[in-house]
Amino acid sequence: MLNNDGRIDMTHGSGGRAMAQLIEQLFAKAFDNPALAESNDQARLDAPKGRLAFSTDSFVISPLFFPGGDIGSLAIHGTVNDVAMSGAKPLWLSAGFILEEGFPLAGLKRIVGSMAEAARKCGVTIVTGDTKVVEKGKADGLFINTAGIGVIPEGVDLSAHNVKEGDTILLSGPIGDHGMAVMSRRENLAFESAIMSDSAPLHDLVACMLKSGADIHALRDPTRGGLATTLNEIARTANVGMRLDEQAIPVRPEVRSACEILGLDPLYVANEGRLIAFCAAHDAEKLLKAMRAHEHGREASIIGNVVPDEHHFVEMRTTLGGHRMVDWLAGEPLPRIC
Amino acid sequence: MLNNDGRIDMTHGSGGRAMAQLIEQLFAKAFDNPALAESNDQARLDAPKGRLAFSTDSFVISPLFFPGGDIGSLAIHGTVNDVAMSGAKPLWLSAGFILEEGFPLAGLKRIVGSMAEAARKCGVTIVTGDTKVVEKGKADGLFINTAGIGVIPEGVDLSAHNVKEGDTILLSGPIGDHGMAVMSRRENLAFESAIMSDSAPLHDLVACMLKSGADIHALRDPTRGGLATTLNEIARTANVGMRLDEQAIPVRPEVRSACEILGLDPLYVANEGRLIAFCAAHDAEKLLKAMRAHEHGREASIIGNVVPDEHHFVEMRTTLGGHRMVDWLAGEPLPRIC
Repeated sequence: MLNNDGRIDMTHGSGGRAMAQLIEQLFAKAFDNPALAESNDQARLDAPKGRLAFSTDSFVISPLFFPGGDIGSLAIHGTVNDVAMSGAKPLWLSAGFILEEGFPLAGLKRIVGSMAEAARKCGVTIVTGDTKVVEKGKADGLFINTAGIGVIPEGVDLSAHNVKEGDTILLSGPIGDHGMAVMSRRENLAFESAIMSDSAPLHDLVACMLKSGADIHALRDPTRGGLATTLNEIARTANVGMRLDEQAIPVRPEVRSACEILGLDPLYVANEGRLIAFCAAHDAEKLLKAMRAHEHGREASIIGNVVPDEHHFVEMRTTLGGHRMVDWLAGEPLPRIC
Repeated sequence: MLNNDGRIDMTHGSGGRAMAQLIEQLFAKAFDNPALAESNDQARLDAPKGRLAFSTDSFVISPLFFPGGDIGSLAIHGTVNDVAMSGAKPLWLSAGFILEEGFPLAGLKRIVGSMAEAARKCGVTIVTGDTKVVEKGKADGLFINTAGIGVIPEGVDLSAHNVKEGDTILLSGPIGDHGMAVMSRRENLAFESAIMSDSAPLHDLVACMLKSGADIHALRDPTRGGLATTLNEIARTANVGMRLDEQAIPVRPEVRSACEILGLDPLYVANEGRLIAFCAAHDAEKLLKAMRAHEHGREASIIGNVVPDEHHFVEMRTTLGGHRMVDWLAGEPLPRIC
């Protein structure tokens, strides 16, 4: 049996008996499902009808545990959300672990339990996986990769290329919570009110938004690089510009304070449970209503609109009434946030 | 433009402009295909009819370059083969990179080029990906995760659970080449004749084997833990025992010598371009013929058969006429071989 006081050693990655025990007693138990139970080197699955969405993310977040989540739940939400931004219903995930020799088994159990719980809540199954071990000092505790497959409902076509001049830009909630929750834990900052990560699965919010019938053109979750960088990416892909209204972009007071202390701009801080929607202007209010009716969209707002601009500039009317350019993130003030 | 003398820095993982440039100028160019060119956080793909195979592997091999391949080609072959062992035709891959700060861009370019070439040769496309950067000392150069999706032809049902008493066991070629190629490079051993890795894609060999019409029950590639461990895994899953004939198991003389020098048993050394087939006895010769007609099965042989055994023992008649137990790999004599 796996010993709770034990640690990962090189034999857990050898392909031999110790690895088989780790897989059986930890991963297979926590992620239990028929495809995984076949014990083959691949999962065999009935192909759904229609189009598939396929995405991957590696997670290298430091620290592994943070207020509102851990690397395990994050590894589920991150890939579920990347799949869901196509409008897809996420179905299956793979999980690849890179473990550093000496990593405590108790920590691994906690993380795997957190993955299993997050997957269950999302209605996805972890159907295939892989475990590697590297020598002490050759990794940082553990890294997790997840890849995900979902099925896109018929008639749904969400893509950055579909964003058009005149589109309304909606944001599902306040920005910067995840990044500042991680930073406050990493820097041991104590704020008056604790900042919790917004890490959450968004596929159900997306399903409700699609159900509203609003003419949605694209969805994206503003993770690394924050809202500012994500908008710039889409502006470039869609060959448009954007105009934002700073007053309409919600930022929690404690996040704003923490950003001020650390000299950060919340527009560039990562989120893990927020999405941006681009929608035909005439349907914006309908979509906003649908978003606000969902627990993950309660604080949704209309933050701006899409304009013709061959330079793909994102500009913002500031709270003080002036205008500023919102450029791509340059540099890396917040490493290993996901 | 990416500078050939440059190195990976933390900004390449920030989500900002430097990361976008790396993706555009390196990954998107090398892996070019319509799904990737959509620049969304997920690929959108037409679901094939039938059953899907889905698999993942992380690659942490050291050194990154070895005789007969590198981590890039290995990351393609490894996942292509795991998908193919279900009988599936591999279609799409994801690629997740974890890069260590300071890693030379020229090395990354070479590895990405090698991935692109291997993928092209396998007829698979890398449709989605992810890049993370960790601080110097927090990883070992680079790690790659690939996940793969394939489609299983109608009527094909290959699984370790299908292996039965009386089945014939076939092996597609000599064992131990990959492991000893990596070890000889790592230990700077110079042998009279250089040992080359057997790293190769096996999906086409599998397709030819299926086409032969032989009644195949299961396929598996004996990677980590080698032939011995893979057979033990299957014996346990299928609730059977196995009897092998040592004389029938091909080992190249130079691999045998290298194993002797290092005190290793070739039965436990990793392969990356070999497969084991379990087949109804009456079709074994037909299957052997089909395997030998393929470039990756030219040295195929019948190595033993499946017997009833509630203890799931794998036993081998030795070259000297005695018998020995072939147990699971215990310990880890060959770390980071894939």
